[in-house]
Amino acid sequence: VRRAAKKPVAPASRLTPIASPACELCSQPGGTLLYRNRSLRIVQVDDADYPGFCRVIWNAHVREMTDLKPAARARLMHAVFATEAAVRKVCAPLKINLASLGNAVPHLHWHVIPRHSDDAHFPQPVWGTRQRPSSPLRPAAAAALRAALVAALAPAVK
Amino acid sequence: VRRAAKKPVAPASRLTPIASPACELCSQPGGTLLYRNRSLRIVQVDDADYPGFCRVIWNAHVREMTDLKPAARARLMHAVFATEAAVRKVCAPLKINLASLGNAVPHLHWHVIPRHSDDAHFPQPVWGTRQRPSSPLRPAAAAALRAALVAALAPAVK
Repeated sequence: VRRAAKKPVAPASRLTPIASPACELCSQPGGTLLYRNRSLRIVQVDDADYPGFCRVIWNAHVREMTDLKPAARARLMHAVFATEAAVRKVCAPLKINLASLGNAVPHLHWHVIPRHSDDAHFPQPVWGTRQRPSSPLRPAAAAALRAALVAALAPAVK
Repeated sequence: VRRAAKKPVAPASRLTPIASPACELCSQPGGTLLYRNRSLRIVQVDDADYPGFCRVIWNAHVREMTDLKPAARARLMHAVFATEAAVRKVCAPLKINLASLGNAVPHLHWHVIPRHSDDAHFPQPVWGTRQRPSSPLRPAAAAALRAALVAALAPAVK
């Protein structure tokens, strides 16, 4: 019996552009991994000023929310709000800041940032002028915070 | 025929806190009105550096996205993404920035900001360090931009 001919490889124009070689969110996790599924991942950002700062990153290389189909958009926002809920539970912030910017890295990612009245930039955005020094967490407290975020996220994200 | 007794006023604890007297987004529109329904409004921000900068403001005084019920949250995000689509159509930006911060005004509002490589702060967030001067639009161009935003928003927001 002769084998069927190999299927031709799809031309490049037919492939979904899921990764971009030069993009740092295609080639690196973007933080310490807290949760991951096929569509997205949630990481903790390495920022000594903001220990509970999380990022929700869409796995595929997509530029804008309105480039996603509505169902995918809803899936991403569900994860963003689950992350907000987990960060509120663990960090009890005065305010949550949410942002999808991506000027330097145009690959969809959401910042979920717990803000406190005595944090480094409050009431400015974290990208604004620093208002005061901040005290980084001790390693044991940082590890406990990470464990608490993982535990709070697990049941919330689907 | 005697009239029925007046219904007692609901005690304060039973009333939904829809407005906060000291909040500027409860007492002022927050920009030039482009669209409004019972739940939310969309305004153009008066910022000479960013003529297409829009804001989607939840009408009731609510602090965080996760304080809204899921259906209301979806309604607000639908308007944010409709605004993103309208701003992309009218301004053709290099990138869209979305943010819900509210440190100074803790009343849910989303910034929808068209970014261009030669704008005042690019690639920094608009809250970061200014990178260069910008040229404000002439009045006729500003009026045309506003009319285009209104026309693009009307069919997109429900």
